Amino acid sequence: MKFKAEIDVMPHDALLDPQGKAVTQALSSIGLTEVEGVRIGRHIRLFVEASDENSANALVNEACQKMLANAIMESYSFSIEVA
Amino acid sequence: MKFKAEIDVMPHDALLDPQGKAVTQALSSIGLTEVEGVRIGRHIRLFVEASDENSANALVNEACQKMLANAIMESYSFSIEVA
Repeated sequence: MKFKAEIDVMPHDALLDPQGKAVTQALSSIGLTEVEGVRIGRHIRLFVEASDENSANALVNEACQKMLANAIMESYSFSIEVA
Repeated sequence: MKFKAEIDVMPHDALLDPQGKAVTQALSSIGLTEVEGVRIGRHIRLFVEASDENSANALVNEACQKMLANAIMESYSFSIEVA
């Protein structure tokens, strides 16, 4: 079966996010002063071939740990559905 | 009220995504051959001060159109919840 995974990789809350801070200020400067606390990470969509949802979960988890996320600076979360 | 928005900005399906393609190949090279079709975009989390959910929606939409997404190359989607 083919599964689709939607993965979010975000900088840890304890870390500064200069890109997000710059975007917060830029949004404010174009009039969107209601916006605050912008943090920017990556969104990754991928497909995985697996026999069942548990295996798909394990594969996506492995991909995140080995390559997609840097555990020192980032945390990740994902959802899986049948593609 | 304060609302939290989770925004995904992804390259249009019709466009090539060289970064995603490179990651697909890299995952395959470390043994994760079950993974395919990786596409990489941005995940943005932000907070917005608004009187109700409709206003928050409108503000986030405006932020996406004016700054967070490049409509020519990217599409965006978001969800909002009370922070």
